Amino acid sequence: MNRRAFLGMTAAGAAGVVLGDLLGKTKQILPGGSQVATADVANETISFYGAHQTGVVTPAQNFANIAAFDVTTSDVKELQELMKQWTEMAATLMAGKPLAAEPQDAKFPPTDTGEQIGLDTGKLTITFAVGATLFDKEGVDRFGLRAKKPAGLTEMPIFHKDTLQEQLTHGDIVIQACSDDPMICFHAIRNLAKAARGVAHLRWQQTGQLGVKSQGTKRNLFGFKDGTNNPALNDENFMKNNVWLESGDGAAWLAGGTYMVVRRIHMRIETWDQQTYSDQETIIGRQKVSGAPLDGHAEMDQPKFSEDDQGKMTALDSHIRLSNPRAGESSERERILRRGYNFMENLDDVGRINAGLLFVCFNRNIQTQFESIQKRLTNPKLPDQMLAYTDTTGGGYFAVLPGVTAKGSYLGQGLFA
Amino acid sequence: MNRRAFLGMTAAGAAGVVLGDLLGKTKQILPGGSQVATADVANETISFYGAHQTGVVTPAQNFANIAAFDVTTSDVKELQELMKQWTEMAATLMAGKPLAAEPQDAKFPPTDTGEQIGLDTGKLTITFAVGATLFDKEGVDRFGLRAKKPAGLTEMPIFHKDTLQEQLTHGDIVIQACSDDPMICFHAIRNLAKAARGVAHLRWQQTGQLGVKSQGTKRNLFGFKDGTNNPALNDENFMKNNVWLESGDGAAWLAGGTYMVVRRIHMRIETWDQQTYSDQETIIGRQKVSGAPLDGHAEMDQPKFSEDDQGKMTALDSHIRLSNPRAGESSERERILRRGYNFMENLDDVGRINAGLLFVCFNRNIQTQFESIQKRLTNPKLPDQMLAYTDTTGGGYFAVLPGVTAKGSYLGQGLFA
Repeated sequence: MNRRAFLGMTAAGAAGVVLGDLLGKTKQILPGGSQVATADVANETISFYGAHQTGVVTPAQNFANIAAFDVTTSDVKELQELMKQWTEMAATLMAGKPLAAEPQDAKFPPTDTGEQIGLDTGKLTITFAVGATLFDKEGVDRFGLRAKKPAGLTEMPIFHKDTLQEQLTHGDIVIQACSDDPMICFHAIRNLAKAARGVAHLRWQQTGQLGVKSQGTKRNLFGFKDGTNNPALNDENFMKNNVWLESGDGAAWLAGGTYMVVRRIHMRIETWDQQTYSDQETIIGRQKVSGAPLDGHAEMDQPKFSEDDQGKMTALDSHIRLSNPRAGESSERERILRRGYNFMENLDDVGRINAGLLFVCFNRNIQTQFESIQKRLTNPKLPDQMLAYTDTTGGGYFAVLPGVTAKGSYLGQGLFA
Repeated sequence: MNRRAFLGMTAAGAAGVVLGDLLGKTKQILPGGSQVATADVANETISFYGAHQTGVVTPAQNFANIAAFDVTTSDVKELQELMKQWTEMAATLMAGKPLAAEPQDAKFPPTDTGEQIGLDTGKLTITFAVGATLFDKEGVDRFGLRAKKPAGLTEMPIFHKDTLQEQLTHGDIVIQACSDDPMICFHAIRNLAKAARGVAHLRWQQTGQLGVKSQGTKRNLFGFKDGTNNPALNDENFMKNNVWLESGDGAAWLAGGTYMVVRRIHMRIETWDQQTYSDQETIIGRQKVSGAPLDGHAEMDQPKFSEDDQGKMTALDSHIRLSNPRAGESSERERILRRGYNFMENLDDVGRINAGLLFVCFNRNIQTQFESIQKRLTNPKLPDQMLAYTDTTGGGYFAVLPGVTAKGSYLGQGLFA
């Protein structure tokens, strides 16, 4: 097995990149009789095992599929068995291995649905998280887990201007599958959902994608760079302070995990596209092409809001100024790790382009980090100008489970102990 | 400019692969201060110009976005102007160039929406086609074009078991954008739709995707290879006989074009996944992993249905046997060029995985090729077994316009002459 360094993989607990097996890496014949030789290319895979789960500080792959599940059983043992089964499956899928050896037993439905055969695993990561309703749903302690509920885990509230749709929001369990191949993400969620039959079923699912081959910071569908000021993935100090949970953080069993916020933000593409170039930059608070601040500093320089307290250069209600007022220590403590994707679906019911941002962030304390920022953005007295061009229709709050450090252990083990 | 050979690009009239410009190919700074050097990688682009449009015999890129438009103007001159504008835009987009030079005029909405800045063009092709309703809609000759209507162009009929939804079906104009980057496909359709404001608007849109890095024939979401028996893209003889229209084919102005059939085929994933491995192979009529026929021949060998007239090895109502009965000359004449994609959306209204096949094919005569095959598959007396696992919800029939051979000419010019 080769091992090699990979951007960001030095962060504490992140798994190494290994070369996995892949069914179907044999000489194939193309339609028309032309042939391609046996592939020499490495099928890059990321190991499932580690103190933290992957898919948090892992450099964002090009595609994501986030799927929320409702647990339908009332038997905690069945839930526990599912977590064990999902643990094994996730390790197998991330290693680029099929879920069953071929030939599979012809008399039964295939254990592995097979659409991924011959595809590279694309650095697949599968990340598991749980929602508040797993611990307490409408006052009912469904699985005897209420006492284990992390202090900071609530259902996502409705912020000013949110238009949450029940069928796109919340969930008992969330699985995030990310890969450089959308078929691999689909295959992972499909097979995990199939294995959960009778115990949990899909509540919602949201796909996301980033530009495939790009230079520098990726762009959102408003045409602006998104993530310019995101922390570096190898900033271990930041991850320790602002992302990873410690045992004193509200639930000892959750140490090594983190809180995940998902928001499905529909962007009003047609309306946005009718705004002037100048207004677009004012609303966001950055230059469109370069991503530089509006006060003349170069791209990565911090804008100097303190020298512009009237908001003459960067409007007080511009998106970036409200998101991060650069108020020193307090702004640093608030900072979150964003790991979002664009989504580009078909038209909605009224014929608008159904596209936007699948906002995903990780933080150590939802209330003092994400919510603190979000409340500023949605303060009815001075709301983020960008809110006029977005509708948040779904998402939720989830607690990302600690990593699984060795075979035999399983996801959420501390929950059932 | 470099030029190089590219699989399938030798087919008559297919455009060469050239290296295009791309805004944003400069040194960029990553979050956290690390840097990447200026890209040396070629941004592969395909030339827009040629006797045939691209996106037909072009090797399938990994992503597609097919968008249908309703023409809303009743002024043929506005329609003609739109075709001229779209021609210029398509040539620019395919060359990997922005639709407007930066800095754009700050007082107006951006001409180019900008989300593609910094991304590779991913061999973008944009293919334009027109539907029967452009010539005659409910008996009305909307643009004085009725006399130009190609003989073989009708609205797609409802085949046995089809569940076509009006808002996902038909359209006056269809644009197919294909690229190795889904953001590039989205950007193309978005900007073409934006430019059409007041003249045409989006009726439906459907995204599709293939596995990113795969060996050999790609697979559909039933886990089977799809396209094993598709003609080779460099088989010029096949394209001449079965794909490209000649001036005697029903409309002289359409010579160099072809007919396109689109069908949005939802696959009942959850139901399929409960069928036994053996039943899945029987329904399709091929081995799942290898794609080989069920009668013992190797992958690319033709199954010998004549030696199995009772259907003991390959069921008479299996998908591949009904699709292509290998009846010699008559089956050869029917053969179509498939260029389909998988689609993987979120859940549907009743919580099922909303995924399937975006079937796309090109043929010289819809009635004697696609429809002849399709009528066999949907014959109520012996329907394709696979129909029990699919629902066709949208699509349409379209005439792909001839290529534009030189600057100054435009798409559909022969239509307005």
